[in-house]
Amino acid sequence: MDGKSSSNTAGKPIRCKAAIARKPGEPLVIEEVIVAPPKQGEVRIKIICTSLCHSDLTFWKLKVAPGIFPTILGHEAVGVVESVGEGVHEVVEGDTVIPTFLSDCGECTDCLSEKSNLCTNFPFRLSPWMDREETSRFSDINGETLYHFLSVSSFSEYTVVDIVHLAKTDPAIPPNRACLLGCGVSTGVGAAWKTAKVEAGTTVAIFGLGAIGLAVAEGSRLCGAKRIIGIDVNQDKCELGKKFGVTDFVNPGNCGDKTVSQVIIEMTGGGADYCFECVGMKSLVHEAYSSCRKGWGKVVVLGVDHPDAMLTFNSFEVLYSGKSIMGSCFGGLKPKSDIRILEKRYLDKELRLDEFVTHEVEFEDINTAFDLMTEGKSLRCVIWMNK
Amino acid sequence: MDGKSSSNTAGKPIRCKAAIARKPGEPLVIEEVIVAPPKQGEVRIKIICTSLCHSDLTFWKLKVAPGIFPTILGHEAVGVVESVGEGVHEVVEGDTVIPTFLSDCGECTDCLSEKSNLCTNFPFRLSPWMDREETSRFSDINGETLYHFLSVSSFSEYTVVDIVHLAKTDPAIPPNRACLLGCGVSTGVGAAWKTAKVEAGTTVAIFGLGAIGLAVAEGSRLCGAKRIIGIDVNQDKCELGKKFGVTDFVNPGNCGDKTVSQVIIEMTGGGADYCFECVGMKSLVHEAYSSCRKGWGKVVVLGVDHPDAMLTFNSFEVLYSGKSIMGSCFGGLKPKSDIRILEKRYLDKELRLDEFVTHEVEFEDINTAFDLMTEGKSLRCVIWMNK
Ligand SMILES: [Zn+2]
Ligand SMILES: [Zn+2]
Ligand SMILES: [Zn+2]
Ligand SMILES: [Zn+2]
Repeated sequence: MDGKSSSNTAGKPIRCKAAIARKPGEPLVIEEVIVAPPKQGEVRIKIICTSLCHSDLTFWKLKVAPGIFPTILGHEAVGVVESVGEGVHEVVEGDTVIPTFLSDCGECTDCLSEKSNLCTNFPFRLSPWMDREETSRFSDINGETLYHFLSVSSFSEYTVVDIVHLAKTDPAIPPNRACLLGCGVSTGVGAAWKTAKVEAGTTVAIFGLGAIGLAVAEGSRLCGAKRIIGIDVNQDKCELGKKFGVTDFVNPGNCGDKTVSQVIIEMTGGGADYCFECVGMKSLVHEAYSSCRKGWGKVVVLGVDHPDAMLTFNSFEVLYSGKSIMGSCFGGLKPKSDIRILEKRYLDKELRLDEFVTHEVEFEDINTAFDLMTEGKSLRCVIWMNK
Repeated sequence: MDGKSSSNTAGKPIRCKAAIARKPGEPLVIEEVIVAPPKQGEVRIKIICTSLCHSDLTFWKLKVAPGIFPTILGHEAVGVVESVGEGVHEVVEGDTVIPTFLSDCGECTDCLSEKSNLCTNFPFRLSPWMDREETSRFSDINGETLYHFLSVSSFSEYTVVDIVHLAKTDPAIPPNRACLLGCGVSTGVGAAWKTAKVEAGTTVAIFGLGAIGLAVAEGSRLCGAKRIIGIDVNQDKCELGKKFGVTDFVNPGNCGDKTVSQVIIEMTGGGADYCFECVGMKSLVHEAYSSCRKGWGKVVVLGVDHPDAMLTFNSFEVLYSGKSIMGSCFGGLKPKSDIRILEKRYLDKELRLDEFVTHEVEFEDINTAFDLMTEGKSLRCVIWMNK
């Protein structure tokens, strides 16, 4: 049975539970769904743990396109391969895997290059379908199609993911930690490590100390940054930040007559070597640009307000500042190879993951995860899908 | 006489000829001027050759601030030290030197860092004065103050320049070649070499094949770029570009229904690895951004429309493209050390300089240089100030 799994359920539809987002902003509904078997290049996974990421919240609330309903959200997860479709040899039944919204085909120019993590064969797009054909593997018990989300849809006991979106992972890592590597934490750590290439002894400024910003701090700490300045309007983040290597805290509300960039320039004697914008506010991108050291400062953009927000820079400043501006998608990480490196660093007790998990809930309480994030109470809430 | 020169004229004002820009856009007037002796940290130079750069033309026409008159323009030059002020030990009478608009104090964090060429002690600013005090060393024979330009003012037989704006140079290089290294050619070559760090085997796209753009081509060629695409509305640049390593030419007027970026993406199978904007048009910065390879493309901005032009980028594109945006001031070169490297490469017959000089005139014909540049007939017109 070349490339095929031998599990009992292989080749057959699976009936299981999923949390369906039926209408924008309304609580998810846990229903029975039918998960079709994986087609060519696809893998069906039993999700063990998933965690809620900000993008889930954003799309859950989105009343206009690319928002689309009914859909199964969730894209930060870890699971076990239940069965594989034709042509899949990279994983077999029982393998532990992390699905990733970014693809890694391993064959295109980008996947073969050390410089890019943006696969050409399976480019990132906001599509409600599978990657190789515009179809869904999900339906409800009435036969209605349920849309996929970011090629993952982990708020289901079983999901189908293209092999290009799957990273084989070390089963030694507890699933309520491994899931974090599927999106937010990897994005933040990677932004420091791979996108900015933070050098030892340097100074970093991080705008916004949510999970991504704290992961940037963690990544910067691992890179040997000497000083890590966190900026957040929530004063509680001052203590919290210390757990992730933040050495200095700036509350924009306490800057008096000064702008945040003025305060940072004074603190650092000229500006931070690297500035990360993790909130997704245009105005903060400019504050980050101004906070950066002339001559060599790098501004890394990790968030966006809304898809068509425009970033504006004064051309004279661009020309005479020596600063550069870059975005970071999944932290510049190559899903299949770089997640493995982060896992190793976690097992070697270098990379911190435990501290990101502030809450854990059972599947039936998945809406609690949404509430906690909406209220700003959680960094990451892990949802146990199958125990 | 510690640090002092022993020339006959040392310590005394020199009466000589200079080409004065008295009113915006009106022909320069060659008059007798008084050049005061250099003060502390300053050097008086006999200019041998100067060439006309686009910035001279821009400021000559500028009717509003920072335009200021009467002034002595010129900032691409080579000369010989006539005398030095107190505290100057780096050069002595008779040394051949290239003045540079960008400073290099050799002592500040930036000058000591490999990453920056933006001196903190003497930051770049558009000032009509000397660097250490707000005074001029020039007056006309009626005693009226004449303003300096970009810390150089080379359209005078003698000028006074701060030592931080002087690069000692190899007298083996003919002066009608050496002067080019003071601004335009260095800026273009440096943008490829130091700012973009063009790698061997890569593809470069250059928007605008004036002297700067052709110098970017030359720099890219020296870095081993495999393919150098020149973009210009002037079809004559197609042949001209070949002299400087341009391998492919795109005339935006011949692109039919396609945009330039579409044509470049097709030619290169995805976009150029590096895109340089050398015209100073906002819209071309965006075209350059679009022409760049996703995943790793770098956009280097070398020009500006006017000081407050704004560059706008779609945040979603910044985030998901993997491209970076950077400016290049004096090509990222450190004036004192990097000009020496370019000189050596010229003497080793690697770097081409001769091809940039399309015209040479005597001092009394300096206005011809302005006409030639205005009419787009010259790349560089060298003006012989003293033979
Ligand atoms: Zn690929
Ligand atoms: Zn996410
Ligand atoms: Zn300096
Ligand atoms: Zn110039």
